[in-house]
Amino acid sequence: MSNANMLLLSSSMIYGHSYLEHVRDTVVEFLPAGSRVAFVPWALEDYDRYTDTTATAMQALGISVTGIHTVASPQELLDGVDAIFVGGGNSFRLLKALYEHDLIDEVRARVTSGKLAYMGSSAGTNMSCPSLRTTNDMPIVQPPSFDAFNLIPFQINPHYQDPDPTSTHMGETREQRIAQFLEENDVAVVGLREGAWLRRIGDSLTLGGSVGARLFQRDSEAVEYTEGADLSFLLKLEPRFDSRAGGQPL
Amino acid sequence: MSNANMLLLSSSMIYGHSYLEHVRDTVVEFLPAGSRVAFVPWALEDYDRYTDTTATAMQALGISVTGIHTVASPQELLDGVDAIFVGGGNSFRLLKALYEHDLIDEVRARVTSGKLAYMGSSAGTNMSCPSLRTTNDMPIVQPPSFDAFNLIPFQINPHYQDPDPTSTHMGETREQRIAQFLEENDVAVVGLREGAWLRRIGDSLTLGGSVGARLFQRDSEAVEYTEGADLSFLLKLEPRFDSRAGGQPL
Repeated sequence: MSNANMLLLSSSMIYGHSYLEHVRDTVVEFLPAGSRVAFVPWALEDYDRYTDTTATAMQALGISVTGIHTVASPQELLDGVDAIFVGGGNSFRLLKALYEHDLIDEVRARVTSGKLAYMGSSAGTNMSCPSLRTTNDMPIVQPPSFDAFNLIPFQINPHYQDPDPTSTHMGETREQRIAQFLEENDVAVVGLREGAWLRRIGDSLTLGGSVGARLFQRDSEAVEYTEGADLSFLLKLEPRFDSRAGGQPL
Repeated sequence: MSNANMLLLSSSMIYGHSYLEHVRDTVVEFLPAGSRVAFVPWALEDYDRYTDTTATAMQALGISVTGIHTVASPQELLDGVDAIFVGGGNSFRLLKALYEHDLIDEVRARVTSGKLAYMGSSAGTNMSCPSLRTTNDMPIVQPPSFDAFNLIPFQINPHYQDPDPTSTHMGETREQRIAQFLEENDVAVVGLREGAWLRRIGDSLTLGGSVGARLFQRDSEAVEYTEGADLSFLLKLEPRFDSRAGGQPL
């Protein structure tokens, strides 16, 4: 039985709404007034500005925020807060910084034991997966490994976009990119549309937001899930990376 | 003075046209009838099928194609052909395979000395750059390094797409992703639209195709170039990777 308490957002904003506005009620349930949060801004270039934006939005909900980049010991900060919120931006830059600050195992241990709640948006949601391998981001810097926090046994593709049937672009659709991922890895992928989120409480996993999500698995048709769907079965899967489906060896 | 002879396509196809059709005249100039080509299909899962497609298209131009995956010694094959054609697909998968077959230095030496002409499309064009850091692809597998063939001193973003002013998507536009790249790297990026290509003959570099390209450099406005533009100055640039522009250290 797991003690993990997690909120994983596809994005921190949806079109026409302010930062975290679309998920306000869920954030309030996840982080009651008075909660203290360590914010990780490393996915964007300007840490102070990003932390300010987050602190302002959270303050309105009675939540206090400290930028993890402002303290001498991130580990000590994590011991003194209720939750970590890993913000979005570029996931390669984020993961590189997490390794440079030796935080992968530190965060994982605290979240799996239930001592620290985990909130992510976009790249921060991607970090909760076993690997960043389903990110949409440009690999602008090289992290030492693609392995991430591994707090769930499946992958999430944030900002999931359905194929546009009118498109004349020859580059891969998101669906085709995920199909390529499944050629190399036997790991479930949740395509989480903007406005959707996953809420994990221990061994229970629920889909939130009105836009739904799509589940991709090797040798299966994609399956559509709607708001409130019980996705707890995903927490029992065993991911198998680098297990080429067919054809010739890489 | 360089002896490199290169043709770098944004994509192998454009909407409504068959494989390599849009660039047929340029391919014929680059690879005269009777040329022998080693084809690298590793960016896609099905090597045989991809090689067949390419061989069929090339055969119509009098060019013979051998899949590099069909020979015991890729190095020997490269010694016996006029050109290498690195096909598109997933650039992480492609680069991983190039490392596994120890081909990075082998190809680089032959192309820079002028012994081997280099043709790339999409991921194959990305491979000619110093790094894969400006790819659009999903990092479905982890190559040992992001360093690529380094046959030119700047980066290319294939399948470049202009921002869509009507979009409600909150994920980064291509332009924003390239801006993130420039935050971390002081390296010029050519956004090569589908249907455009670069033709290098020694120290000369020319833009081909009617759709144009966009040049992105740190601390500069993006510059638009049109068909026939002389881009030779790009060959004299000195790329500086991992040189953060401002803000806080990563």
